[in-house]
Amino acid sequence: MQALHVIKIGGNVIDNSENLHRFLKDFTALDGHKILIHGGGKVATQISESMGIEAKMIDGRRITDIDTLRIVTMVYGGLINKNIVAQLQRYGNNAIGLTGADGNLIHAQKRPVKTIDYGFVGDLKEESVNAENIAKLLDGGFTPVFCALTHDGEGQLLNTNADTIASALAVALSDKYETTLIYCFEKKGVLHDVNDDESLIREINPERYHKLKQEQVIHSGMIPKLDNAFAAISCGVKAVVIGHSDDLGQLKGKHAFGTRLSE
Amino acid sequence: MQALHVIKIGGNVIDNSENLHRFLKDFTALDGHKILIHGGGKVATQISESMGIEAKMIDGRRITDIDTLRIVTMVYGGLINKNIVAQLQRYGNNAIGLTGADGNLIHAQKRPVKTIDYGFVGDLKEESVNAENIAKLLDGGFTPVFCALTHDGEGQLLNTNADTIASALAVALSDKYETTLIYCFEKKGVLHDVNDDESLIREINPERYHKLKQEQVIHSGMIPKLDNAFAAISCGVKAVVIGHSDDLGQLKGKHAFGTRLSE
Repeated sequence: MQALHVIKIGGNVIDNSENLHRFLKDFTALDGHKILIHGGGKVATQISESMGIEAKMIDGRRITDIDTLRIVTMVYGGLINKNIVAQLQRYGNNAIGLTGADGNLIHAQKRPVKTIDYGFVGDLKEESVNAENIAKLLDGGFTPVFCALTHDGEGQLLNTNADTIASALAVALSDKYETTLIYCFEKKGVLHDVNDDESLIREINPERYHKLKQEQVIHSGMIPKLDNAFAAISCGVKAVVIGHSDDLGQLKGKHAFGTRLSE
Repeated sequence: MQALHVIKIGGNVIDNSENLHRFLKDFTALDGHKILIHGGGKVATQISESMGIEAKMIDGRRITDIDTLRIVTMVYGGLINKNIVAQLQRYGNNAIGLTGADGNLIHAQKRPVKTIDYGFVGDLKEESVNAENIAKLLDGGFTPVFCALTHDGEGQLLNTNADTIASALAVALSDKYETTLIYCFEKKGVLHDVNDDESLIREINPERYHKLKQEQVIHSGMIPKLDNAFAAISCGVKAVVIGHSDDLGQLKGKHAFGTRLSE
């Protein structure tokens, strides 16, 4: 099977144009098929504010009302996505910018209203990702660049968490490709001591993960992140790597980038 | 050769959601390969105004400064494009929304500054359209939906006239497909009497075009439009059809839609 890297970057990369350019160069330099998934960043908030639209929160949760969905469609699907594509083209990477509506690539279901109405938020199901159509793009020499938008197949765009999209893509494509899922964030990886970047843990398998949780080295917010990573691995993803976007260039040297989770 | 319809719609279709839905249904019902190109519409102006950005004009010409380019990238590339894609998906058409940067499909050159600096406006050249990559999408079962954005290959998005994009796509793809270029506008076609919709001229060949110009039935603004149409035909496009977006459904009956220009 051919190798595939599925890489997610967050707003911290997008907000700093120097970091973004370095990342996009390193991304382009990676061998083999690759997919990029990007989140939002501060620009969405800035544009909302300039249009007089306030972020809607209920019980600390962000709500995607119709105004927010319009902003997100403009900023994620247009401004950020198309500028990333244009930059990747500059570096010789044949990027193609996508939402889940494009090519019917990612189908989602509007989150049912229980105690909170999240608005136009889409949840993914097992069969959400159209692996066949994505493979057509990859095998045609295109590099898919996804923003955090999906659709319900009934004409409605939906806002979907970018981490969730990345994981679903990696799982669905692991039948066709030897898939590595990479989350870039603002830390060098999983750290023994959260305040010491030098305390990076290079490799974690399920056994070690169990031990690190018992020792409370891994706790609170990291647990659902790593649970999801190991769930992806148990569904066929070869490895999940968590690291700093600035360091992606190290990936070509193997094992020197971030924390690698595998069986 | 397989048939291909390249269809351009303007802001008048996009601004009216009922008309847009009817058009998208009719577009979906057309047999064979198809490509849609859409312009902007009032929503771009509304969003500019809500952000306090004024349209920049010099000598009656619209200027694409950096703020305008951001708006256009958000509204054309995001809001309008992705909503059209989501609607087409609803009707069972496997649409994929694109700028010219995506897949390096349409390359342009920033317009050189002479008497007027148009800003981030891109002009097309003979080799601008990447017919090979577009054919990969068409043959992969996707329906490309282009907004009026291109790129210079150096990381810069550019604003390019949607009519020009439609014509360049049709010409470039006529080597691979039997291509019909369709401009949808707010009239039923070329009219003998501009105030009488019943005076539609059904067919015009170069000889008749010459005569209609001599008789001043065709004059002023229609002349460059039709000159461009006949230029596309002389470059391999099978026919150019000009008609009202509301009537596209008639195209399945052949010859009953708009004015058909051919050799």
